[in-house]
Amino acid sequence: MPLFRKVLYPTDFSELAEIAKDYVKKLKEANAKEVVVLHVIHPLEFSIPQFDDPFALDVATLYAHLPEIEKAILKGHEERLEEIKRELEALGYRVKTILTVGEPKREIVRVAEEEKVNVIVIGYHGKSLIERILEIGSTAKAVIKEASCPVLVVKKKEEG
Amino acid sequence: MPLFRKVLYPTDFSELAEIAKDYVKKLKEANAKEVVVLHVIHPLEFSIPQFDDPFALDVATLYAHLPEIEKAILKGHEERLEEIKRELEALGYRVKTILTVGEPKREIVRVAEEEKVNVIVIGYHGKSLIERILEIGSTAKAVIKEASCPVLVVKKKEEG
Repeated sequence: MPLFRKVLYPTDFSELAEIAKDYVKKLKEANAKEVVVLHVIHPLEFSIPQFDDPFALDVATLYAHLPEIEKAILKGHEERLEEIKRELEALGYRVKTILTVGEPKREIVRVAEEEKVNVIVIGYHGKSLIERILEIGSTAKAVIKEASCPVLVVKKKEEG
Repeated sequence: MPLFRKVLYPTDFSELAEIAKDYVKKLKEANAKEVVVLHVIHPLEFSIPQFDDPFALDVATLYAHLPEIEKAILKGHEERLEEIKRELEALGYRVKTILTVGEPKREIVRVAEEEKVNVIVIGYHGKSLIERILEIGSTAKAVIKEASCPVLVVKKKEEG
């Protein structure tokens, strides 16, 4: 039974996402073969006042409208995805990277369904102040609730 | 890194817990060695009006005060734990079974800490009417929030 064959690994490039990546790697031993590495760009990270619905943007349109300094940030995201890709490929994984714009929890659930993954590996932490303000702290919780596949929830504090 | 070495598998013997058990088995390939199989008896399952705080009972005291017909139910729980133990031992796991009385979410988190497990594998489903009434539907959510170790959340509907 290919319980863990295809893994979705959403990353915000945080320390917690790094910890989650260790679990993605470990699932290789449980016959995981493919990883979809997803980074969702929250459009409020960028200064794009010209769009009424920045959540509906695609990456190319977003890129085209960014000031130079923010273009570099977006390029940086792409490079970090490529680094993760190389790191996972070195273990023998087939890897696909996806960079999208939107509400992280919705995009994660959408990609999980589109890509028909068998498990999502995601970090969970309490809400920080900035997250409470931006209402982005409950990504893991929303994903657990909405996803139809199993979710491996990785915590920051760990036993053992 | 022994990311999945010791697994806590809380079971209410439901169909969903059966699905979760498949994941417990699969983690053997990712170097899991030990499984703690836990069943928490919710004291409101039983007719024990003589106790002010049935949540504080131990299993022996509960057993001693049950009418015969309910003793059989409790015995049944013990036998099912033993069956699961044999099933997992057959795969090469070291297995410990624990039967306790209490609030499931609290007991699961407590046992996870006491036993220093590396991961909890638990089923998640929406709340049914009876669960809403008994306020037991959010076990998985509470465990995810409170546990310090990773939690593999298994859903009923699955992709692929």
